[in-house]
Amino acid sequence: MKSTIRDVAKMAGVSISTVSRVMNSPNSVIESKRERVLEAVEQLKYQPNAFARGLIYKKSFTLGLLIPDIENLYYAGVIRGVQDACIKLGYSLMICNTDRDKDRLLSYIDTFHEKQVDGVVLASDILYPEYYDKLVGCRIPFVLVSSHSDEYDIPSVEIDDEAAAYDAVKFLIELGHKEIGMIGFNHDNSIAGPPRYEGFIRALTEFGLERNIEKIKYANHRYEHAYQATHELFTDFPDLTAVFCVADEFAMGTISYLKDRNILVPGQVSVVGFDNLRMASMFIPKLTTIAQPIYELGYRGAEKLHELITTGSVELRREKMEHKLIVRESSREK
Amino acid sequence: MKSTIRDVAKMAGVSISTVSRVMNSPNSVIESKRERVLEAVEQLKYQPNAFARGLIYKKSFTLGLLIPDIENLYYAGVIRGVQDACIKLGYSLMICNTDRDKDRLLSYIDTFHEKQVDGVVLASDILYPEYYDKLVGCRIPFVLVSSHSDEYDIPSVEIDDEAAAYDAVKFLIELGHKEIGMIGFNHDNSIAGPPRYEGFIRALTEFGLERNIEKIKYANHRYEHAYQATHELFTDFPDLTAVFCVADEFAMGTISYLKDRNILVPGQVSVVGFDNLRMASMFIPKLTTIAQPIYELGYRGAEKLHELITTGSVELRREKMEHKLIVRESSREK
Repeated sequence: MKSTIRDVAKMAGVSISTVSRVMNSPNSVIESKRERVLEAVEQLKYQPNAFARGLIYKKSFTLGLLIPDIENLYYAGVIRGVQDACIKLGYSLMICNTDRDKDRLLSYIDTFHEKQVDGVVLASDILYPEYYDKLVGCRIPFVLVSSHSDEYDIPSVEIDDEAAAYDAVKFLIELGHKEIGMIGFNHDNSIAGPPRYEGFIRALTEFGLERNIEKIKYANHRYEHAYQATHELFTDFPDLTAVFCVADEFAMGTISYLKDRNILVPGQVSVVGFDNLRMASMFIPKLTTIAQPIYELGYRGAEKLHELITTGSVELRREKMEHKLIVRESSREK
Repeated sequence: MKSTIRDVAKMAGVSISTVSRVMNSPNSVIESKRERVLEAVEQLKYQPNAFARGLIYKKSFTLGLLIPDIENLYYAGVIRGVQDACIKLGYSLMICNTDRDKDRLLSYIDTFHEKQVDGVVLASDILYPEYYDKLVGCRIPFVLVSSHSDEYDIPSVEIDDEAAAYDAVKFLIELGHKEIGMIGFNHDNSIAGPPRYEGFIRALTEFGLERNIEKIKYANHRYEHAYQATHELFTDFPDLTAVFCVADEFAMGTISYLKDRNILVPGQVSVVGFDNLRMASMFIPKLTTIAQPIYELGYRGAEKLHELITTGSVELRREKMEHKLIVRESSREK
């Protein structure tokens, strides 16, 4: 038989409400009683019932996290950040992988609603009207991580993608590269695609290299797509000496393609990535890249959600964190 | 106001118990009534309350998954498998990352207990007595994925690690290699460490290459540790022409070390990994490796847990899935 609050009260020789106070605000109970209760809890292996607690307090002390692709190392970092913040703040975390599937994401919101999560972190995805309507319809507070919304007034935390892309391209230009291509995210399904494109354009324009503006191919989030896009890029523009890739996963695809064509990186072509995944320093050559504070973005996102849940609003609506260029082996002076 | 089952019954002109039957076993309700109920559910955006349902049925329709390291791509594959099975079987999934920390894992079991998960998948970790006692004490059914227990009678699904390691080493021997080293898992905190070691020893012994038995260094799950272990291995045994690494992550560390010492892979040294992570075919050179059916292991683990939860037992207690050697670029004839 599972023990109940009644059993604990009986063993400790106190009232049920005293046990309840020890569980919920221990400092309101004098020490001698508190110790007897805790001893009884220990001996009886008593566990407060989350269902019953949920019904009383209307809180589940659980947050939901929606990520687009569990096999992308970027999200591993975000998950660790969100999870560590949850541990600190006293939440459990339910992680759901949407595989970038709209219907699956919507059905996870249903699950979150049914489990009565206290709030949701939506990572790296565009806030489509369907998502917004459903989350608001279910009255679930939510925040965006590595994303933002111009349309809706939703708290978010991300880096300045435009400035970061600008920094990466400026770095290549200052190394002496004049023929620079880009492997970008498709704009129609990516939140980071347009601003990283704009950063590329701004750097080229500022340094009088507008002739490169057309030298872009787009890929669909994964290594294999970037490999194929690089093939198209070098077929159209064989004289490139540098490529800016908007993700480390793309940079790995680009470098693998060049390797398969016996083009040396960085000997003949410099490649700069974006994200600073764990793999960036394990790859051969190690990637020069824009470091995002991936773990911190996740951590901050969960803190923001907690602020929203407990106070009903957040102080800093659209928060930007710092990025940083990290120079390793995949880039070289022209 | 959130709508209740009462509102649905009223709008559909049926009894509350009819609504309940439509939600729980729709085929027991005649079509005309069923359609009226579903229409009302739709219009009122009625959601059955998981807390209340949990109290009635004592089921939360949620499973827990404990993984050791969210940043290891092996677990991304396992997670996808478990998750897809959960979707098929009608469970939500709560994923928790333990960072290989015993206390954290034990506290997640408390959380699972409080949330009344219906069962837990424990991936790739030794089933320590503390874990067993706690899970059994909380009466949570559980299964092991990429792990097993000799001590306790717990359902498990994994590959045959000894045979897989044997195949990898035999492959190197048949390529003509006679000086073969190994980067292994520490035995004291790894479930796969001892059997992969035994497979290495068996292959060497069978082919009269016992002189290599001492040529082993151990690493602690991560790339960086394997890099360092390879440094030690080649310092002690500079004449090695092949290395068997018990994980792809180790193989990447080994190859990076050799690259930094200007030792060609596979030109001078062949390297075989283990797992067949997504990264194995993205790395330069692409890894020859033992493929585990990572996704299928996760999927099968969740199915097994479902079998255990719904029937109280499983038909196949200790299930083994097939491994396969995949030859790519990191190995070559001696």
